[in-house]
Amino acid sequence: MSQTEIDNLIELLARLPGIGPRSARRLALSMLKKPDSLMRPLSKSLIDTANSIIKCSICGNLDTISPCSICQNESRDKSIIVVIEEVADLWALERASVHKGLYHVLGGTLSAIDGVSPNDIGISELVERAQKDETKEIILAMNATIDGQTTAYYITDQLAKSEVKVSRLARGVPVGGELDYMDDGTLLEAIESRQPF
Amino acid sequence: MSQTEIDNLIELLARLPGIGPRSARRLALSMLKKPDSLMRPLSKSLIDTANSIIKCSICGNLDTISPCSICQNESRDKSIIVVIEEVADLWALERASVHKGLYHVLGGTLSAIDGVSPNDIGISELVERAQKDETKEIILAMNATIDGQTTAYYITDQLAKSEVKVSRLARGVPVGGELDYMDDGTLLEAIESRQPF
Repeated sequence: MSQTEIDNLIELLARLPGIGPRSARRLALSMLKKPDSLMRPLSKSLIDTANSIIKCSICGNLDTISPCSICQNESRDKSIIVVIEEVADLWALERASVHKGLYHVLGGTLSAIDGVSPNDIGISELVERAQKDETKEIILAMNATIDGQTTAYYITDQLAKSEVKVSRLARGVPVGGELDYMDDGTLLEAIESRQPF
Repeated sequence: MSQTEIDNLIELLARLPGIGPRSARRLALSMLKKPDSLMRPLSKSLIDTANSIIKCSICGNLDTISPCSICQNESRDKSIIVVIEEVADLWALERASVHKGLYHVLGGTLSAIDGVSPNDIGISELVERAQKDETKEIILAMNATIDGQTTAYYITDQLAKSEVKVSRLARGVPVGGELDYMDDGTLLEAIESRQPF
């Protein structure tokens, strides 16, 4: 079969996370039905994005400018830095509009299994930012996973010498959550961190 | 945020089947981490594919040439045509190397709900191909779904006047299948179409 173009496309799509060979074939086929409305715009969008998006030199966010639009925004509170694992987490917090300060994207977590050491993620840059006079509080917002919390403990340790306040996200029952479906750890945290009503 | 390039990419990715806004963001982010090894090659692959792939004028297969490489292949048995719903089904049969004849891709099934009528899928073209002297047998290989089988019945009806032999795929327990997990319809077909051992 002289379909090397399609095979090549499928092979590239299968490299995406969560996309196996079968899903890649399905995606390729659905694209092939829309060459002008989907394939060409997507091709252009990919090259445009690859050409224009850079990592912010301060916080690690992805933007067309560096420092990014959040770091450059004068109306944001420069005294509070939220530390997150990935840019996706920054997007989630921005969508929810729950933080008006700055961010620090680690780009991963410490992981013994995957061989990720403190030098591989932006921890020293965070410690450096914490030394600045304008920085008053650092909120650790890593995922509530083993690796996320290991990283949080490590960072807390590194920041012990600085005068910055270190806090972490509250744990408990998520909004809309049903007790029956919560794991033991969540219920324990929810009871221990109970609040006056 | 001045991230219109990323938002645009996410919006395009979310148009793919089975990809919601959350998956699209995840895909976009993972691509952003690999601009040179993934985004640029994928962009090029998409435009190359869009520029080179066409639908076969005979069978509806997707290829760089029309008639496609299967229709042009002199070593294939031109007396048997397997009718399938989508190009994906053609690929599945080719991967399994279970058919050495030709194909006819309908490009869908009849569907009252989605408003797909016989003129919308390649049924008249199939009837025309069935009239040819070289065509001896047509194997209906639509999916074993309501719409697939409705289409199969309709095609059988349309071919009743022609002298071509019309058959359908065997039904029964799939290889590796466990009886305990089979639905009643499959078990009924497997019993009724039992074969000498």
